[in-house]
Amino acid sequence: MSDLAHLGPVEMFTPEGERSLAFFVDTMGMEVVAQQGPSTYLRGWGDYQRWSLKLTASDTSGMGVLGLRAWSPEALDRRVAMVEATGLGIGWTDGEVGRGPGYRFTDPDGHLFELYYECERYEPPPDRAPALKNVPGRYSGRGCAVKRLDHINILAADVRASRDFCVDTLGYRLYERIELDDGSEAGAWMSLTIAAHELIYTRDALAARGRLHHVAFWVDTREECMRAADIWLDAGIEIEAAPSKHAIAQGYFLYGIEPGGNRVEVTSGGRLIYDPDEPCVVWTEAERAKGQAWGVQTVPSFHTYGTPPVEP
Amino acid sequence: MSDLAHLGPVEMFTPEGERSLAFFVDTMGMEVVAQQGPSTYLRGWGDYQRWSLKLTASDTSGMGVLGLRAWSPEALDRRVAMVEATGLGIGWTDGEVGRGPGYRFTDPDGHLFELYYECERYEPPPDRAPALKNVPGRYSGRGCAVKRLDHINILAADVRASRDFCVDTLGYRLYERIELDDGSEAGAWMSLTIAAHELIYTRDALAARGRLHHVAFWVDTREECMRAADIWLDAGIEIEAAPSKHAIAQGYFLYGIEPGGNRVEVTSGGRLIYDPDEPCVVWTEAERAKGQAWGVQTVPSFHTYGTPPVEP
Amino acid sequence: MSDLAHLGPVEMFTPEGERSLAFFVDTMGMEVVAQQGPSTYLRGWGDYQRWSLKLTASDTSGMGVLGLRAWSPEALDRRVAMVEATGLGIGWTDGEVGRGPGYRFTDPDGHLFELYYECERYEPPPDRAPALKNVPGRYSGRGCAVKRLDHINILAADVRASRDFCVDTLGYRLYERIELDDGSEAGAWMSLTIAAHELIYTRDALAARGRLHHVAFWVDTREECMRAADIWLDAGIEIEAAPSKHAIAQGYFLYGIEPGGNRVEVTSGGRLIYDPDEPCVVWTEAERAKGQAWGVQTVPSFHTYGTPPVEP
Amino acid sequence: MSDLAHLGPVEMFTPEGERSLAFFVDTMGMEVVAQQGPSTYLRGWGDYQRWSLKLTASDTSGMGVLGLRAWSPEALDRRVAMVEATGLGIGWTDGEVGRGPGYRFTDPDGHLFELYYECERYEPPPDRAPALKNVPGRYSGRGCAVKRLDHINILAADVRASRDFCVDTLGYRLYERIELDDGSEAGAWMSLTIAAHELIYTRDALAARGRLHHVAFWVDTREECMRAADIWLDAGIEIEAAPSKHAIAQGYFLYGIEPGGNRVEVTSGGRLIYDPDEPCVVWTEAERAKGQAWGVQTVPSFHTYGTPPVEP
Repeated sequence: MSDLAHLGPVEMFTPEGERSLAFFVDTMGMEVVAQQGPSTYLRGWGDYQRWSLKLTASDTSGMGVLGLRAWSPEALDRRVAMVEATGLGIGWTDGEVGRGPGYRFTDPDGHLFELYYECERYEPPPDRAPALKNVPGRYSGRGCAVKRLDHINILAADVRASRDFCVDTLGYRLYERIELDDGSEAGAWMSLTIAAHELIYTRDALAARGRLHHVAFWVDTREECMRAADIWLDAGIEIEAAPSKHAIAQGYFLYGIEPGGNRVEVTSGGRLIYDPDEPCVVWTEAERAKGQAWGVQTVPSFHTYGTPPVEP
Repeated sequence: MSDLAHLGPVEMFTPEGERSLAFFVDTMGMEVVAQQGPSTYLRGWGDYQRWSLKLTASDTSGMGVLGLRAWSPEALDRRVAMVEATGLGIGWTDGEVGRGPGYRFTDPDGHLFELYYECERYEPPPDRAPALKNVPGRYSGRGCAVKRLDHINILAADVRASRDFCVDTLGYRLYERIELDDGSEAGAWMSLTIAAHELIYTRDALAARGRLHHVAFWVDTREECMRAADIWLDAGIEIEAAPSKHAIAQGYFLYGIEPGGNRVEVTSGGRLIYDPDEPCVVWTEAERAKGQAWGVQTVPSFHTYGTPPVEP
Repeated sequence: MSDLAHLGPVEMFTPEGERSLAFFVDTMGMEVVAQQGPSTYLRGWGDYQRWSLKLTASDTSGMGVLGLRAWSPEALDRRVAMVEATGLGIGWTDGEVGRGPGYRFTDPDGHLFELYYECERYEPPPDRAPALKNVPGRYSGRGCAVKRLDHINILAADVRASRDFCVDTLGYRLYERIELDDGSEAGAWMSLTIAAHELIYTRDALAARGRLHHVAFWVDTREECMRAADIWLDAGIEIEAAPSKHAIAQGYFLYGIEPGGNRVEVTSGGRLIYDPDEPCVVWTEAERAKGQAWGVQTVPSFHTYGTPPVEP
Repeated sequence: MSDLAHLGPVEMFTPEGERSLAFFVDTMGMEVVAQQGPSTYLRGWGDYQRWSLKLTASDTSGMGVLGLRAWSPEALDRRVAMVEATGLGIGWTDGEVGRGPGYRFTDPDGHLFELYYECERYEPPPDRAPALKNVPGRYSGRGCAVKRLDHINILAADVRASRDFCVDTLGYRLYERIELDDGSEAGAWMSLTIAAHELIYTRDALAARGRLHHVAFWVDTREECMRAADIWLDAGIEIEAAPSKHAIAQGYFLYGIEPGGNRVEVTSGGRLIYDPDEPCVVWTEAERAKGQAWGVQTVPSFHTYGTPPVEP
């Protein structure tokens, strides 16, 4: 089993700082917990940490640094040593809002990660304390009212190299993957828990490196995904893929493009894996050609678009 | 069939004007469309009329006037004549915000009603126009985000007298009722449409007259009723009856007391009656003793509390 | 208002009698209440009549006779007279299982209708009596467990002629319609109640006459539509359109083809129309080009396929 | 972290073998996969193992042996050694249907457990293979259609002793507990995963030993819990607690008594715990007096009844 507990927080770059912020606050229903330089720190009402999304105004879009929280100081040290051994390490950093020291490195595709253990839990102001003591915060009751950061899908020129690194060095479990007829890997779905996916790699159709496919936020029901689609429609957010069910991992999805150009998902559902020996499900090209769970064909942009955008 | 189309808008009195308004706007997610003297006019995001709730600051709680919309000017005239023939008529009025002439009368129990036909439809401001042209307004995405006024339950010292009036003079269909062992009627569920209930009379345990039991607002799913309970809990709203399913009419409910003391329901579901000859379902004392649909016993206050409160 | 209460039962022809029957019983979860010659009579667990679907083994697919129930004997006579005046009348019939005399006629497109008033209500056998007396039968708990017949969509070479007949002669309310750029009508959504649609006409792309587009069965939640898709997938039923939300009428849908070739829908949701003056919503070609509510493009077969199939 | 993967299968004794079996098959919608002597082996459609419930006809009710699956052969050996060190070990056994060697022991309260690693995965017969390869079986579409065994709640005379054993020796994480005013522990909610509870101990009000409080089966939505209540009502199953939401762990519940006398739950929802340092939530007597999440008071039998029944 892994020394890592979960993925996140994640940093997202946006060339449209104000409009992206308005999207995450007004439409997605997240709340601002801190502001520092060009970055705004946000959380969903059910995120246990102080923040789960760092939105950074920049000259482009894409993912900044992706945090991975270790189970303990010892687990952190173990994994840092393993990363260092791969030659992908960068070094220690600190100073991130509400977080202890972090060790930065890149995956084989060039995405920036940061391992950390210490972090602050969200403490609601007294007049916003939830009635039940086992929830981190009150339901926001605003817009899509997303609950928490759920998973990240990043693009990689070489999916297998990156997923091998995640499995071997970081301790991820590989639950599902796509193997094309030529034997290459088009996607890999990995997790640190019984949840079907936390970290996903899919192939970068443009062979670019370090790009983001999407960041997914959780809601508790599929009905709330559908309501989010209503809300996006009225708010003028581009719906790239209407609510439906994935064949892979069985999650329910809504995909769209936030004002800064990044793909965002509102998700719910997805299978749980209790079997410690769960065989990795391998999807073939023929199977993927059937579309999503109920036969919906994926829009072509889903297979090509990532951030930052590159010339095809 | 009836000459009347539907029930509402309804006026609610509150001795806590500001706090009640905050409840309906912030917690229930309604929006203010007009203000006049001590009254604020509100709507749910799916109400087709300009407003469905008139909240009037007053020295007590309870229901003000309950509107009933006629199908046509001719239907209005027909029903006014029938009401006048019963001796319960009061006379014509006009000047209500966004509405044509109305004819006021009381039911046998003394509740004030107003028949009207002309009214304004809600027109969203251009920057709030919904994306789909067959919805009256955008989903509010705030708090419980109730969609529209659904039904009213009023108390009567003599249920049968009032429901006879509603059936004979107003044209309501009687779908369900409670008949106690002594032959008296403890409740009557009536509607103008295929919806299971729009106007309900239940017995006033204190034999007072003209009192309100509750005003119910619709949400599209039972999940949203449950979410409303979460929201009320955090907002400090008293939950009188937690979400569950009624045996009568099969509606799903959440009951609580708004800051002004009036009972409010968030509801969804409920059976539809397509049979023109649907036999009225008569519930006995023994059957009612089984509690709600799944056996939940109704809290005692539900059988006694109404607004305005009276000395027992 | 109309003299008619609701649509149904409907007769469906199938060249695959046994396989179609297995579909409606095992997959859709309906129950057989009678058998007569080549016809099997079925009902959903929430249908108040003895049966809502008459499945008739035949040499082809398509719709047989579509029943329309009148509000009263007098209402029946009134509408029969009006139909006779149009010259589309055929004459009285009787002998249908569990039903009194019916008057048959065709709409301008040649579909066979039958007006009737008398009919039997479903009476469950004592050992299947539901616990609550205001439900017609027990939840079937089998497969998709559809509740009741909901609406019918038929094709017409000339939509406007048929919808004018339904509005003028039968008393339907026209809630929504599609008007193409050339001024012709591509679809009309009509109802006898506050439900958004009960009878729909859409243009027959092949200019054939008397064909069926689909028969829709109701479930209480959108979750059940999605579960139905899972069930169809496993049962090998062809999913033509995966669960999503219609822009028109806002119903949630799942479309597929039953073994006999007829298109069947599992549906939930849809708007309610309380306004007696509700303006008919007119959709343009440009608006329809946007796809369904959340942007899903309708599959081409949806615009062309009907039963019985004809050579294009 | 734990060497154990998850809880289950569980054995349930029943003095009403045939009626209990009919309940689990017809009402709960499970399927029979094997039969051996007085025991029937059942599974929910989403259980990955061949079976999750062993129903054994006996002269009384209650729990037989509760399985706990280890992550690996090495993990199994480690935990067996730790159990042996406590003196609670019994010894190795084998021969359970579809399972490798198991090591039996009791918790401090006398409940029988069995640690094992090897087990067979469910393999559907070819004509029942699900369409998607990442689900273990087809949705059963029968009755409540429960998906899988979810959690077990057992009673203990001394809750703290048993939960200390589970945490220290078995590696459970303790997420929530009840501490009474006298400092004693009335309940402990533990898990091996991010799911809020898998193994629960609550105080045996009769100070009996080795008794069962309830066995819980999962459905994917709260709507399905409510539907299960409808189904139980019609089937004559005693509903002990109607669907509502727990304050502790936030699970949605329906409780009832199966024909053999054992308490059974249909559950969905519940919080997920991603924080490796999640502080254990301690509920006080005053907090518990508020009832469940939305204020529903727990029925008294819930605090006293267990199986096998004992004289109070």
